Amino acid sequence: MRIAIDMDEVLADPISKFVSRYNQDYNVPLDLTMEPGYEFFHHIPEHINHKWYDYINEAGFFRDLPLIEGSVEAVKKLQEEHDVYIVSAATEFRNSLVDKYDWLSEHFPFISWKNIVFCGNKIIKADVLIDDRIKNFVDFDGRKLLFTSPHNLLVTDYERVDNWQQVLEKIQQQPAAKL
Amino acid sequence: MRIAIDMDEVLADPISKFVSRYNQDYNVPLDLTMEPGYEFFHHIPEHINHKWYDYINEAGFFRDLPLIEGSVEAVKKLQEEHDVYIVSAATEFRNSLVDKYDWLSEHFPFISWKNIVFCGNKIIKADVLIDDRIKNFVDFDGRKLLFTSPHNLLVTDYERVDNWQQVLEKIQQQPAAKL
Repeated sequence: MRIAIDMDEVLADPISKFVSRYNQDYNVPLDLTMEPGYEFFHHIPEHINHKWYDYINEAGFFRDLPLIEGSVEAVKKLQEEHDVYIVSAATEFRNSLVDKYDWLSEHFPFISWKNIVFCGNKIIKADVLIDDRIKNFVDFDGRKLLFTSPHNLLVTDYERVDNWQQVLEKIQQQPAAKL
Repeated sequence: MRIAIDMDEVLADPISKFVSRYNQDYNVPLDLTMEPGYEFFHHIPEHINHKWYDYINEAGFFRDLPLIEGSVEAVKKLQEEHDVYIVSAATEFRNSLVDKYDWLSEHFPFISWKNIVFCGNKIIKADVLIDDRIKNFVDFDGRKLLFTSPHNLLVTDYERVDNWQQVLEKIQQQPAAKL
């Protein structure tokens, strides 16, 4: 079975990096209660709200993101039985390409270059897609697992996974049809 | 209709770049008759045969490749009626990522970041794939157009296009079924 896995907010945690960049530059309290349905930048004071876009374009931004808990072990486990691809919308940010490549080499060295896809629209063919953004599900034919992130908490239309333990349980329980 | 287009030896010409790098470093004549069925490195003297791998890994190698004749105009024309994606096996060479991104920005600025795919295996969903490597056709469901390059001249199993004019003619003549 071919399983495609998104990076940001699924394997890697950009939100805590945004918070640390804001803290580095501004002496303002950040309201990061992260209410359901809101993006992190909705919680940033208005006069510096646009800065997230500068941060995300910085060389190095994606290089040292923290791991989402349990992701390395779970992906390794999935790879024992399945054909695992990492599929990330990286082409939006030029400098993210090499950062994401190096980040994967560091944390997921068992993923071959053949199994990495850096793209814009996810025009991929796979049996399962694990992603936090429902826009990536629209044209996807396989099984969709919505990985929980504050911005998608109000979405009810998709099968949801709150963490990597749940991903493993769901994939072991209900294997999708082979391609 | 969604049309996926490979980069090397289809839009960009890495072979002439290899030749110029060899000429820069070695005072040897290069037999680049490019016989049908052979890769360019089969024509390099044996003691420096391995150098192509160093060259291709150099930062900047893919940044200034010459264009394949007619490619810009043809892709622009295809884009008027179709959903065009550039799909390149870029993840094999870390440094190629940003070089290919910048090369596309320079020569194909009308291609959105949403329509770029840098990958290893081409696990994409499209109606047409234009590529010079038949390995990329194996798992592809749509119409396959083999773009002529010396290494594939002995291949007879696929619909062949020798240049961009022929691509336009073939796509106008025989539109594939919509996805």
